[in-house]
Amino acid sequence: MNEKFIKETVDAIVEEIVRPSNDMTLEAALILCRKVMKKAKEKGVKAVVAVTNKGANPVTVQCSDDSFIASYDIALNKAYTSVALKMTTKELAALAAPGGSLYGIQFTNGGKIVIFGGGEPLKNKNGEVIGGIGVSGGSEEQDTYLAGYGREIFEKGTV
Amino acid sequence: MNEKFIKETVDAIVEEIVRPSNDMTLEAALILCRKVMKKAKEKGVKAVVAVTNKGANPVTVQCSDDSFIASYDIALNKAYTSVALKMTTKELAALAAPGGSLYGIQFTNGGKIVIFGGGEPLKNKNGEVIGGIGVSGGSEEQDTYLAGYGREIFEKGTV
Amino acid sequence: MNEKFIKETVDAIVEEIVRPSNDMTLEAALILCRKVMKKAKEKGVKAVVAVTNKGANPVTVQCSDDSFIASYDIALNKAYTSVALKMTTKELAALAAPGGSLYGIQFTNGGKIVIFGGGEPLKNKNGEVIGGIGVSGGSEEQDTYLAGYGREIFEKGTV
Amino acid sequence: MNEKFIKETVDAIVEEIVRPSNDMTLEAALILCRKVMKKAKEKGVKAVVAVTNKGANPVTVQCSDDSFIASYDIALNKAYTSVALKMTTKELAALAAPGGSLYGIQFTNGGKIVIFGGGEPLKNKNGEVIGGIGVSGGSEEQDTYLAGYGREIFEKGTV
Repeated sequence: MNEKFIKETVDAIVEEIVRPSNDMTLEAALILCRKVMKKAKEKGVKAVVAVTNKGANPVTVQCSDDSFIASYDIALNKAYTSVALKMTTKELAALAAPGGSLYGIQFTNGGKIVIFGGGEPLKNKNGEVIGGIGVSGGSEEQDTYLAGYGREIFEKGTV
Repeated sequence: MNEKFIKETVDAIVEEIVRPSNDMTLEAALILCRKVMKKAKEKGVKAVVAVTNKGANPVTVQCSDDSFIASYDIALNKAYTSVALKMTTKELAALAAPGGSLYGIQFTNGGKIVIFGGGEPLKNKNGEVIGGIGVSGGSEEQDTYLAGYGREIFEKGTV
Repeated sequence: MNEKFIKETVDAIVEEIVRPSNDMTLEAALILCRKVMKKAKEKGVKAVVAVTNKGANPVTVQCSDDSFIASYDIALNKAYTSVALKMTTKELAALAAPGGSLYGIQFTNGGKIVIFGGGEPLKNKNGEVIGGIGVSGGSEEQDTYLAGYGREIFEKGTV
Repeated sequence: MNEKFIKETVDAIVEEIVRPSNDMTLEAALILCRKVMKKAKEKGVKAVVAVTNKGANPVTVQCSDDSFIASYDIALNKAYTSVALKMTTKELAALAAPGGSLYGIQFTNGGKIVIFGGGEPLKNKNGEVIGGIGVSGGSEEQDTYLAGYGREIFEKGTV
């Protein structure tokens, strides 16, 4: 318990996201996941968080205890979508709605395109997309908030 | 014939669903299926009934004679969906409709998410989801009714 | 408990498999499953048992508590294979082995062909295949024995 | 640097795997991954490590920087296989080889069965399988070693 306190104190000092310059790293992804998971817990969300690299391939996925089984695929596909289309899945939702200019895009990539909020592209300091984050497990509003939070702290990371 | 009468009388006495505390059992699933199948016959529905455990893996599936071939996958996926998202597929239908916050969710999990009625999560006495039931073969109203009936009698089972 | 004794006694009297003349019925499949499951328990096997009709579509699948998760697909595919090729999966094993005349057949049907024992075709009194049984969960020897047992009692059923 | 030293020292003290009694937890899975990843680095392997729960659903997956893209699916499927068949993928390899009793099993479960080393079931103190670990990225010997190492330290965890 005391050790846990020490650990958390040290974590707070040490765990700065080092924002990669070229492509997502496992180290950055793990710290990002931990911070988003912590925020999810505060909000009472049993989240699944996924981070992909700039090739839209997974770097890490983490599932809270008792989270939705379906959230694994959804979180991963949100992260995929954000990198693959270089926009948030919330932005895509508007374009993909009936009448939107990309209506039907959810059928074009083997079931990997998600068209509701909770996915965000992650950029390096030059504004290039070097990865994506996807969050699933809460309401769409909660997932969107948490992914946006992840994007924000990532982009505040040291370089 | 007379033997059948005796059997049915004894069944009526004996077949109480023993509601599992931790995870779906085959015994509970079989009794549940039999009761839902009986109700389906009364309603004139050639039903397929599927029951999954809390890992969303199948425990039993049963197909009425001359039921729709497509209903096998639909019933199983309804049960899967109910566990994987911890809600009825009827509740999901509203969220997944055009304009809903989860519009497009049916494309995110390899074709396993069903967004019309007939799937229900099954809970233990502590309110934890320990399985799901999916019914297919009638109209959406009939399937929704039958799955809801299954959920109700399951949750009235002895512990 | 006493009721259970009565029930089991009545079951023993009543539960004769009525062998269908044209196509597998759910009633016959359920009785067959129950008998094979009972034998599996005696042998200490946590079995998954699947029965298909003559269209090679599932009629029922039942998974023992704590059986292998992988056994669901395997049992179902064994039953499929037995109907689809009108031979036991044990017979097919020899033909599909390296050097055999059907070597490679396991790649031709979308992953549904099983080439080890535990699947048996089920015939009506005229010798026509009207369904199949697949068993998975024990060693190959046990699964082969149990499927063969199922086939035998099915073919002894009254017509 | 100095902070990193403090952090690692504290980690070494604090990070005991608390072995779950009923089902895999994210906390246990993350500590397990970190320890296996550390060992992989020592061996010069760019590993992907996956941990599933007892329903064979993923709990976490982590991919080393510059690891094989293919290793993501392989590691996850190794973990799946170990839970779904309750044996190591190395043990399965022998059974699935030409001439083995399960030759051909790799084709029966939609491409999710892996038949070479690197997957291990993870048990609770009662010997029940509550999850699985899959490692991919090195030679088969290295993956088998690393998964076995993970199993060993997991089973030494405090309860």
